[in-house]
Amino acid sequence: MFAIALGTGTRDAQGQLLEAYFPYPTRNPSQALVDALLVGEPAGAEVAIDAGCAQRLTDAGESKMAAAVQALGDKAFVTALDSDAEPSSTAEVYLKLTLISTRQAKPHELNLTGLFAQLPNVAWTSEGAIALDELTERQIQARAEGRALTVNSVDKFPRMADYAVPAGIRIGDASRVRLGAHLGDGTTVMHEGFVNFNAGTTGVSMVEGRISAGVMVGEGSDLGGGCSTMGTLSGGNSIVISVGDQCLLGANSGLGIPLGDRCTVESGLYLTAGSKVRVLDENGNTLKEVKARDLAGVSDLLFRRNSMTGTVECLANARAIELNPALHSHN
Amino acid sequence: MFAIALGTGTRDAQGQLLEAYFPYPTRNPSQALVDALLVGEPAGAEVAIDAGCAQRLTDAGESKMAAAVQALGDKAFVTALDSDAEPSSTAEVYLKLTLISTRQAKPHELNLTGLFAQLPNVAWTSEGAIALDELTERQIQARAEGRALTVNSVDKFPRMADYAVPAGIRIGDASRVRLGAHLGDGTTVMHEGFVNFNAGTTGVSMVEGRISAGVMVGEGSDLGGGCSTMGTLSGGNSIVISVGDQCLLGANSGLGIPLGDRCTVESGLYLTAGSKVRVLDENGNTLKEVKARDLAGVSDLLFRRNSMTGTVECLANARAIELNPALHSHN
Amino acid sequence: MFAIALGTGTRDAQGQLLEAYFPYPTRNPSQALVDALLVGEPAGAEVAIDAGCAQRLTDAGESKMAAAVQALGDKAFVTALDSDAEPSSTAEVYLKLTLISTRQAKPHELNLTGLFAQLPNVAWTSEGAIALDELTERQIQARAEGRALTVNSVDKFPRMADYAVPAGIRIGDASRVRLGAHLGDGTTVMHEGFVNFNAGTTGVSMVEGRISAGVMVGEGSDLGGGCSTMGTLSGGNSIVISVGDQCLLGANSGLGIPLGDRCTVESGLYLTAGSKVRVLDENGNTLKEVKARDLAGVSDLLFRRNSMTGTVECLANARAIELNPALHSHN
Repeated sequence: MFAIALGTGTRDAQGQLLEAYFPYPTRNPSQALVDALLVGEPAGAEVAIDAGCAQRLTDAGESKMAAAVQALGDKAFVTALDSDAEPSSTAEVYLKLTLISTRQAKPHELNLTGLFAQLPNVAWTSEGAIALDELTERQIQARAEGRALTVNSVDKFPRMADYAVPAGIRIGDASRVRLGAHLGDGTTVMHEGFVNFNAGTTGVSMVEGRISAGVMVGEGSDLGGGCSTMGTLSGGNSIVISVGDQCLLGANSGLGIPLGDRCTVESGLYLTAGSKVRVLDENGNTLKEVKARDLAGVSDLLFRRNSMTGTVECLANARAIELNPALHSHN
Repeated sequence: MFAIALGTGTRDAQGQLLEAYFPYPTRNPSQALVDALLVGEPAGAEVAIDAGCAQRLTDAGESKMAAAVQALGDKAFVTALDSDAEPSSTAEVYLKLTLISTRQAKPHELNLTGLFAQLPNVAWTSEGAIALDELTERQIQARAEGRALTVNSVDKFPRMADYAVPAGIRIGDASRVRLGAHLGDGTTVMHEGFVNFNAGTTGVSMVEGRISAGVMVGEGSDLGGGCSTMGTLSGGNSIVISVGDQCLLGANSGLGIPLGDRCTVESGLYLTAGSKVRVLDENGNTLKEVKARDLAGVSDLLFRRNSMTGTVECLANARAIELNPALHSHN
Repeated sequence: MFAIALGTGTRDAQGQLLEAYFPYPTRNPSQALVDALLVGEPAGAEVAIDAGCAQRLTDAGESKMAAAVQALGDKAFVTALDSDAEPSSTAEVYLKLTLISTRQAKPHELNLTGLFAQLPNVAWTSEGAIALDELTERQIQARAEGRALTVNSVDKFPRMADYAVPAGIRIGDASRVRLGAHLGDGTTVMHEGFVNFNAGTTGVSMVEGRISAGVMVGEGSDLGGGCSTMGTLSGGNSIVISVGDQCLLGANSGLGIPLGDRCTVESGLYLTAGSKVRVLDENGNTLKEVKARDLAGVSDLLFRRNSMTGTVECLANARAIELNPALHSHN
């Protein structure tokens, strides 16, 4: 079995799931766990839980999961996925996004084809997920009863932190990290940082800029305040941007090509794929002029705009340039 | 009558309205609706509701409004505006801003003169609007009773989504869209997007940048992450910025002039009104050098900074430039 | 005594303080207040409150504090600091940060050495501060009981507005101002603005950009949308950035040097300390070429990038440059 999880969720007035929460999701589960949760039922998006489940979980050593089953009662269900097929239900998408955010899968690793169609657009409120056509009545009801119902977001994706908070992270403003983000151990997402789904960091990173859908950032790389990584969802660019290890994107900079390791983009410089760049050696001599996209994946580069001439320059050692194809085949 | 609405709101200890919520606001109401809500009372900011109101609304076919009157009881009032005069009360301003956010009025269409004076500065909290001089006592009381009172904002304007969520929108972070914003059907405001009051989009748009007060964005135009549109409230610029149809403001770009249709500002380029710009034809030949403000409202332009020379260039076809006065008189 | 305050806070399952709230903190307290709160107890981070405290506070004329003691009951404690020593407890750090945010201390004025070690990383939720290892159980419990527990942040620092809202401020999105920020009377932090701890404004300011840890902004200075001030925590820069009076950082600009008074950085220009800058007189003649860091603290400068040549220029009057050492010794 590909993955299994005890879940619970919020339903609209028609009983359709608006969102699903999986406190202890498991990829590649043991047969014992599968047996405890499913008792021979076939896999599915919302499998009902039978009366003996909590006891079987306890017997299988899953005491936390057993306690959750007991606490949630008939609000609980099981989502069991035989394989990593194209998702066909809301619960399935939520489980896959949760697997990424709990670091059980890397971005780009899971089949998320067509996920938008499986995610309802929801009002995320202080009273939970609410279907949009039920929102006004709920707001009136709340005010009538003396409560303040606050709408935090109207979106297909919820905040990651309401579903998964992996070890070793900080997030200044949880509304800026979507479920399906992958934050490595040691990553801090400051208030100006942003991480979309199916994107993120592999390890220690200070993220004060925006990690677009699909973008991965390597170990030890920092994204300065307000910096931009170009996404592929809009903007007409089909190259998937990535950032290697120990890179620095300066504040308010922008990146339109995949970077190798130990690269720097100066604060304030937006490096688009089509930017013509003058490559300089250590002595400041021009080696060549290329499009930025031709430097994709090369390590040990420093990009800056010359403040006297306005030229976008790339400082490199000649060896880094020569070794490009060999060293950076992983790009 | 200009507009009428059933309302409810939050009051400070002196009974002054801090905010007003209008679930079903109506511009140019039918006489039947006016009669059902007012029973001959004169228009006003906070007209009391009489005992027969819910029944009259039901008789007039306004079942949702009738249910709201019954649910809200003596928390409900009616705000009725004879004309679009300069607002003179908090309820009036909230009703006008709600008309914009429910797409019953376009930005710049309503008389909002002096609105700041009618809007109290309020602590927007998890327990609703709280007067600033009552906040500390409320925080102590909440903690004493085991609750966490969270302050989401200290501002004259609330979040739009707590007052109006029109059809066909998504908002990644609701704290970034103020009441009085106008989001067209098909608009997504991503987490880094921002929309001020009396500003917004007319139709389908992806908004990942900031739409300042007064700025309108046309159908099919996208605002890249972190891009800036200059406002008129500060910054010393009196030109009202606008963006035509099918434009693209690149990520981290900036705009200091009104744009025509099908224009692009390259990622990372801040085009101020006073920027000198070199206008090029399709072959890269210089046509002329002008201030950016001289290109206000012209369509089919591409603005970029030459990455070799640092020159801000405008790629246009000569015809676009010539036709400027005729085609773009709407600017 | 350096400071004293009635406090209350949230504890984890082991009884450790996760955060502390001081509604009426007092720097340099009168002996009467110290006597009323402590009754001869030695200073400390969490001094228990005895039964007579509320009456003594009433007798000392501290009626609000007396009411708080009565309301909070055994949830209350006293934090009393003999001196401004290096903080050694969570309560102590919270009290010092609260003193800054209530304008009883300026940034850089208090000893905050080692504060990170005293601040636990906490999940800030709609149900208050929760220890990270207790979060999942709390989320399950909330859902089991039909509540939505929302995680607003996972951080060592809370939002300022949940602890202190000094007079004369507005904050568009409270999640963007950390406890320990200092907002002057007349400061508006718009939704895109950000203020870190031990940083802020001295008076009237419109803040739509990011004030990094340690950065102070003078009276009448505005920070345009998305502008960046370089911090010293990361980025490899050891100069403490500051902004003098009546300065303007344009939208999407960036600042890597301390500015004097009446300086402007044009929208979209990122001025790093190492940028070579051409200094021009009123007639546009080049006076000299210097690194930006050599202009640190000089007043009456305008920084821009020439849109024809790409050169970063500094417009100044010659006198401003000459008087630098004398006028700007405070930098």
